[in-house]
Amino acid sequence: MKSTKIWLTVACAAAFSSAVLAHAQEADPKKEAIEYRQSAMKIIGWNFKPMGAMVKGEKPFDAKELARRAKDIAAVSSIDILAGFPEDTDGKGSKAKPEIWMKWDDFKSKMGDMEREMAKLAEVSKGGDQGAIKKQFGDTAKTCKSCHDDFKE
Amino acid sequence: MKSTKIWLTVACAAAFSSAVLAHAQEADPKKEAIEYRQSAMKIIGWNFKPMGAMVKGEKPFDAKELARRAKDIAAVSSIDILAGFPEDTDGKGSKAKPEIWMKWDDFKSKMGDMEREMAKLAEVSKGGDQGAIKKQFGDTAKTCKSCHDDFKE
Repeated sequence: MKSTKIWLTVACAAAFSSAVLAHAQEADPKKEAIEYRQSAMKIIGWNFKPMGAMVKGEKPFDAKELARRAKDIAAVSSIDILAGFPEDTDGKGSKAKPEIWMKWDDFKSKMGDMEREMAKLAEVSKGGDQGAIKKQFGDTAKTCKSCHDDFKE
Repeated sequence: MKSTKIWLTVACAAAFSSAVLAHAQEADPKKEAIEYRQSAMKIIGWNFKPMGAMVKGEKPFDAKELARRAKDIAAVSSIDILAGFPEDTDGKGSKAKPEIWMKWDDFKSKMGDMEREMAKLAEVSKGGDQGAIKKQFGDTAKTCKSCHDDFKE
């Protein structure tokens, strides 16, 4: 009898914590927002890295692949990434600095710079002119660095 | 002296494992591909869920928000998500089924269905006609389900 009681207590506690956990997962818009914005950055980074390798000559220059990647990062940079930065979502699980919310207009403007330069890079990449692409890649990379320097740990 | 030696050994071991870890992270294109494709799905899901809530009447219908979300998922569905499915990247850390690579053309076709319906949804959402939006949302959701049924654990 005693062991049944203990077992039920354990089972109920387990069920309860699962329920709490499930609820916490569903009801944690901050965590979801962090994962959302990190997803956008992940896609951009996944494409940007091999593009950089081509531009630096560490990988053969493939104009078609580069143009496709440029188009894709332009598409992702056009989405509402700012929606993934609700207030006070720095800290745990994120490298976002609190300065983002202290200097929101500056942050927003730098995100706009990225979007604009990525759109240009997609456009320039269509032409296949390596010199122009390399220059525009550099201009785009500068917008990443400028924002990361100020707003990313 | 002894403690210095131990300290150095610990420091070197830590440095070495970081280096190995960094190398393993860089050199695991399969893991990177999984994270890339999951990022695309994460962005789509993050937007699709509140759109669904609006369509089902669980959340007030905000035509402007819905149109913005529809535009964003159309943008993400237009990127090369298939590039995130190199062969044999089912299993660990992924819910992708091996059927993806066994029925690649079918998988590719279903991904194309999603892209097409999301593009339509973005277009229809601009108009603000709730009936048309709800219908198109349903048609889009069907393409998600159809692919997940066959190819996702």
